Amino acid sequence: MTKKRILSGMRPTGKLHIGHLVGALDNWIKLQDDYESYHLIADYHVLTTRLETKNIYNDSIEMLIDWLACGLDPIKSPMFRQSQIKEHTELHLIFSMLITVNRLERNPTVKDQIRDLHIEHVIYGHLGYPVLQAADILLYKGGAVPVGEDQVPHVEISREIARKFNNQYGVVFPEPEPLLTKFARLQGLDGNAKMSKSLNNTILLSDEPAIIKAKIKKAVTDPNKIRKGDPGDPDICLIFSYHKKFISAEVLEINAACRSGALGCVDCKMKCASKISELLNPIIEKRHYYEQKLNEVTDILLDGEKRARNTAQVTMNEVREKMKLG
Amino acid sequence: MTKKRILSGMRPTGKLHIGHLVGALDNWIKLQDDYESYHLIADYHVLTTRLETKNIYNDSIEMLIDWLACGLDPIKSPMFRQSQIKEHTELHLIFSMLITVNRLERNPTVKDQIRDLHIEHVIYGHLGYPVLQAADILLYKGGAVPVGEDQVPHVEISREIARKFNNQYGVVFPEPEPLLTKFARLQGLDGNAKMSKSLNNTILLSDEPAIIKAKIKKAVTDPNKIRKGDPGDPDICLIFSYHKKFISAEVLEINAACRSGALGCVDCKMKCASKISELLNPIIEKRHYYEQKLNEVTDILLDGEKRARNTAQVTMNEVREKMKLG
Repeated sequence: MTKKRILSGMRPTGKLHIGHLVGALDNWIKLQDDYESYHLIADYHVLTTRLETKNIYNDSIEMLIDWLACGLDPIKSPMFRQSQIKEHTELHLIFSMLITVNRLERNPTVKDQIRDLHIEHVIYGHLGYPVLQAADILLYKGGAVPVGEDQVPHVEISREIARKFNNQYGVVFPEPEPLLTKFARLQGLDGNAKMSKSLNNTILLSDEPAIIKAKIKKAVTDPNKIRKGDPGDPDICLIFSYHKKFISAEVLEINAACRSGALGCVDCKMKCASKISELLNPIIEKRHYYEQKLNEVTDILLDGEKRARNTAQVTMNEVREKMKLG
Repeated sequence: MTKKRILSGMRPTGKLHIGHLVGALDNWIKLQDDYESYHLIADYHVLTTRLETKNIYNDSIEMLIDWLACGLDPIKSPMFRQSQIKEHTELHLIFSMLITVNRLERNPTVKDQIRDLHIEHVIYGHLGYPVLQAADILLYKGGAVPVGEDQVPHVEISREIARKFNNQYGVVFPEPEPLLTKFARLQGLDGNAKMSKSLNNTILLSDEPAIIKAKIKKAVTDPNKIRKGDPGDPDICLIFSYHKKFISAEVLEINAACRSGALGCVDCKMKCASKISELLNPIIEKRHYYEQKLNEVTDILLDGEKRARNTAQVTMNEVREKMKLG
């Protein structure tokens, strides 16, 4: 039996951080054996909120290296840039005829973005970004999409578009299901609910131990715990949230030692920094390997793009045939 | 010195009518010597207001035959289907990031369409159709676009998008100028201000003399002129508007004879029908030729598409280079 296909993607924003690992990559790596995965470097999507593209190629390569370093397997799953497969834009145009402006304006995720980014006049392509996402998914006949809660409304739009196309022209597309990643978002080093490059509150997957130590040293803990000996409250401590994520074995012990005052914040932070470095060590090692072999990275990308293009062309041939286009 | 390029296009709605000849083709034919013309069969645009595509290929071929029969020269000017040049959709996606939803909602032509077609919820791709049109024009670096008054706001949107791209990424595109066709729209046979297939009030370029006679016979004239001898008012007569368009030599004479009552409506109509048939005769002859040589028509189309694609690819390579995409 053939495996179900999934499409997963990220915008290329350069080097990834541990929030990406916990929130997506760990899940993608688990899924790559059971599904036929397509990994999209969504470079066109960057344009929906930022027109500057000077570094988009380098950012894509840095992200790809992180994917590889984390354990995504390019033999199993093609990795490719959206901008290199023209069929994304073809299907996007066709899909743009299958949904109303009203429907897109009701999309809560775009509404949130517009609010968070203080956008006064929304860009046409930004409003339509779930249409492009539908094309991304359905071009590969993705039957499932690994997403966080906030992306579920987009998958619903993809389902509606697939249904509309199938009803109008004949069945070509599956109706993709969201594969919910049950992750609690990783907090940023500044205590912000979200770790994000634009907030400058991240630990990068490529950060060396000394850098991680320095970053964690500056992080805020329970403000009432001034010095070792003071009892602390792990429930409001950012560092403890990392412990829970990364050191599950010792977490009860740390909890008790913080509350009793036996564990001071500096020691606790160093323990956390070491643990994260330990976790990232094999990733950094693989990263160094790929940084030395950039040709290999480009070959992986070109190979992925060739394979993705083949699949995309098969789908578009079906689309054209059903629509009697050309 | 190289000629300035123009892009002119029509939606493929099948066989054309005399309104198309008077309103556009006559002008295109005049322009083809002084400009490097690209003639677009805008099949994707059909989808903005009608999803049904069953006959889109045949409709495209019928339109192409009419173009050729009227005297558009495929050696001078490539003729091609939008759907066969993927670069239209690529540039469309990029351009969709360069304009706001508000700006598109202010476009009077789309507003009129929404009103005329009684559209309750506007389709995303319909709202964006000037964006696709900008891609159509600028993909070929069209410096001018032959349009009627109603299309001027679209050309303005193309200019804005060209400017926005050039400012953001470096100069690739000209700012296209509208080449206004100074035509009075041809009234429909039912007296409607517009001759249009959907109103079923047309004389087709391919109508044989007997059909034209029958169609014109049923047309409404001055309702106060019941029989020959009654004085008529040419200023409110549909048929007289055709006389003015097609028989300029005799128009004063007809005017006087109608007013005096010397010319009856039946004779006047037959004079009009003959004149139109005489005008269409060489077109119909050439049409018969191409109907017998469908292979030649397809070759013309494929050759046009190859030439258009070459130009389109050159432009897209520049676009990608400026944007550092890939």
